[in-house]
Amino acid sequence: MMKTAREVNEIKRAHVVDGVLPIFHHRWSARAFADREVSREDLRRVFEAARWAPSSYNEQPWRYIVGTRGTETHKKVADSLVPFNRSWAQRAPVLILGVAKARFSHDNSPNSYAVFDLGAASAYLVLQAAALGLTTHQMAGFDREKARKLLVIPEAYDFGSVIALGYQDEPERLANEELIKRETQPRERKALDKFVFGEWEKPLGL
Amino acid sequence: MMKTAREVNEIKRAHVVDGVLPIFHHRWSARAFADREVSREDLRRVFEAARWAPSSYNEQPWRYIVGTRGTETHKKVADSLVPFNRSWAQRAPVLILGVAKARFSHDNSPNSYAVFDLGAASAYLVLQAAALGLTTHQMAGFDREKARKLLVIPEAYDFGSVIALGYQDEPERLANEELIKRETQPRERKALDKFVFGEWEKPLGL
Repeated sequence: MMKTAREVNEIKRAHVVDGVLPIFHHRWSARAFADREVSREDLRRVFEAARWAPSSYNEQPWRYIVGTRGTETHKKVADSLVPFNRSWAQRAPVLILGVAKARFSHDNSPNSYAVFDLGAASAYLVLQAAALGLTTHQMAGFDREKARKLLVIPEAYDFGSVIALGYQDEPERLANEELIKRETQPRERKALDKFVFGEWEKPLGL
Repeated sequence: MMKTAREVNEIKRAHVVDGVLPIFHHRWSARAFADREVSREDLRRVFEAARWAPSSYNEQPWRYIVGTRGTETHKKVADSLVPFNRSWAQRAPVLILGVAKARFSHDNSPNSYAVFDLGAASAYLVLQAAALGLTTHQMAGFDREKARKLLVIPEAYDFGSVIALGYQDEPERLANEELIKRETQPRERKALDKFVFGEWEKPLGL
């Protein structure tokens, strides 16, 4: 019996996350996207959130190329994806490529925090999307050289993720056993003791 | 006339950010830390939030070394900071170093998203801290080789930020003209048209 989107959301959000803002747990990375478009106002809101991320020297190294369905940019981002990702992500009404300026603007020195800061801004983006009832799925699986060429990204910028953005659809939309399995299985995370240490690899014991 | 912490918060949060979760705008990076300790329960909550960040292959490459005031780890993280940062950050009751495992666990191949994902988890962490009434300040200004040696971080891990975590104090606590200036001036961010493009460097026009 195929699970519904509602049932899937219950599975993905079944973990007890006591005392934490609900938005952190609400967000998960769906792959089944509905045909429904994302409004310009909601697009503005997700980037307005990203805008307020912290960054080294307040450089704000992040840049986003946004392709809405039907545009050349949407097609180019989709064409850059590896076939497995393209198979489901091309249905997303918005495809976004995040890149980061690799040198500081104030003195042209290398910014070793450019990609770290892009990761933060993209986290802000996907959390705000979840707050608006949208779903997102970030992907590392794309051809960087193809994306650089098709989207004319200067060499001075390093790549982050491709972000599929839209409304969640029923899992059956995926029409692929492996994708449906991933869409419907519980999420897993390491226990705190595996990544919060008082000394290296000695759990802080929270 | 010295501004109070309350006045500073009004300045830092004066921007209109219509339609966005308040937490994104509420968080800013203070430098004046009060002597008040952070409870273990609040520490648990900020790492519980970080736990739910998305990551490439769900690798969760982030690791955090946490020094609470009075511990050797707190002293070692403080000693790794450049003097300018140490001058104010050593007062923070919690100093955290974030690092990322540079290779995937499933096949030992390089994980080019390790630092990007650490940036996302650290964004979750600082947002949850803000929701708890805590303040955070991430720093890039520390001696990596010193931190690696003092805290025994394996070469297989790349560095993220040092995060000072605690309660905000009055700006006058900083007792330094330059620091007080930074603490009390408005925040600045690029306009959306400077980083949200439809095609490279052509504003999407949100």
